[in-house]
Amino acid sequence: MQRYFIPPERLVSGKAVIEGDDARHLALVMRARIGDRIVVSDGRGRTVLAEIAELDKTKVTATVIEPLPADAEPAVHVWIAQSLPKGDKMETVIQKCTEIGATRIIPFLSERTVVRYNPPAEEKRLQRWRKIAKEAAEQAHRDKVPEIEAPMTWKQLLQAASDADAALFCYERENGRTLGEQLKYLFSRKAEKPVRTVLIVVGPEGGFTEREVKEAEAAGIVPVSMGRRILRAETAGMVGLACVLYEAGEMGG
Amino acid sequence: MQRYFIPPERLVSGKAVIEGDDARHLALVMRARIGDRIVVSDGRGRTVLAEIAELDKTKVTATVIEPLPADAEPAVHVWIAQSLPKGDKMETVIQKCTEIGATRIIPFLSERTVVRYNPPAEEKRLQRWRKIAKEAAEQAHRDKVPEIEAPMTWKQLLQAASDADAALFCYERENGRTLGEQLKYLFSRKAEKPVRTVLIVVGPEGGFTEREVKEAEAAGIVPVSMGRRILRAETAGMVGLACVLYEAGEMGG
Repeated sequence: MQRYFIPPERLVSGKAVIEGDDARHLALVMRARIGDRIVVSDGRGRTVLAEIAELDKTKVTATVIEPLPADAEPAVHVWIAQSLPKGDKMETVIQKCTEIGATRIIPFLSERTVVRYNPPAEEKRLQRWRKIAKEAAEQAHRDKVPEIEAPMTWKQLLQAASDADAALFCYERENGRTLGEQLKYLFSRKAEKPVRTVLIVVGPEGGFTEREVKEAEAAGIVPVSMGRRILRAETAGMVGLACVLYEAGEMGG
Repeated sequence: MQRYFIPPERLVSGKAVIEGDDARHLALVMRARIGDRIVVSDGRGRTVLAEIAELDKTKVTATVIEPLPADAEPAVHVWIAQSLPKGDKMETVIQKCTEIGATRIIPFLSERTVVRYNPPAEEKRLQRWRKIAKEAAEQAHRDKVPEIEAPMTWKQLLQAASDADAALFCYERENGRTLGEQLKYLFSRKAEKPVRTVLIVVGPEGGFTEREVKEAEAAGIVPVSMGRRILRAETAGMVGLACVLYEAGEMGG
């Protein structure tokens, strides 16, 4: 069943109000009729079944029938920090990582980030990214839309890393610890040290500089190898995310 | 270091001969010079370090210096069978699954496959897919290029499934077995029943029909859920592949 995210203030008093593009989509693309049922979520974990009471192409009002179990969210929160990749690859990262189950996506700038960072255009780009995340979350039947942050500086990212219970960075020259070893270690001792949030940091196409590697390690971010194949910048995050969720039991097992 | 795949017959008698687009790329894009060193692989597991002896933009001849360890290939072979998705998404599947480590990719046609299958254009499309796989394998520093099959019928796919040690299909209405449970079960008993090849079957955007589900199960393909989030057709294969390689220890651990 079609699912729509709306701001929490439009899901009150037993009514859900859908406006803008989504109202237009419901009325014109889905050809919804009064009496049709839809799933509406406030994007923060509250999801309901609702019946359309009034509609035109600018606004749809639906009566809440019953709350639905909001059980599509992973128990472990995975944050993907991605050095801004070239072209529209950040959009791919946001779409795929939202589907797979990330809860926060943090673009950042590092020394070898090659894309031009253009502050006046940033607000528009951020809105586009958030729309991609919302649509991907709807399509994946999630109960929450991941937070898409405005691009951080390297220093801000190191600061944000301290809020996660565990932080890893994908480092292709790492011959020591592997992703699998580190995840098994973390989850084996979760009784003593809970693993509620895991940050995965992915570098730019040209990799991290030596200085960045040292700073990341000093900030408690553990370098890990993701196996013997070299993943592209836009692929590493989704593979790391799938592995964390797999190890956490989110794919069953 | 730049890596090039060449046909096995051009890597003989201590010489590697690179022709066509790759020669052009070496001469004009990489601006290679006589004496430069490159990595050349026959795409079947033989990889060497070689020194350029002669070059122009149509042909590069390099002298083999030494064999390199061909250790980038996963011990478990994962085959991804993908019902032909819309648009150019099959290209995404081939590129990403090659990077992550698939060894065989099988497009197939199922009842709800919506793309038009146009036999006269197929040969050209297949060549394009194989080029994408070759380039992704080079970029990922793999020693082998995955086999990209011409699209199979559903019946041919069921037949091919019998060649794999284990076959799974991603089924979103599966409330029973999960991917994690099934993989842990398979790998826990690998001493009795080796798991050298795992086939993952991914359906079209509209899912499998009831009849297909029954036929797949009758052919020994096990339906598995991939968690509580609904993955797009082009995302399921890469996530399943990452999880198989993770469980097999290919990401360490």
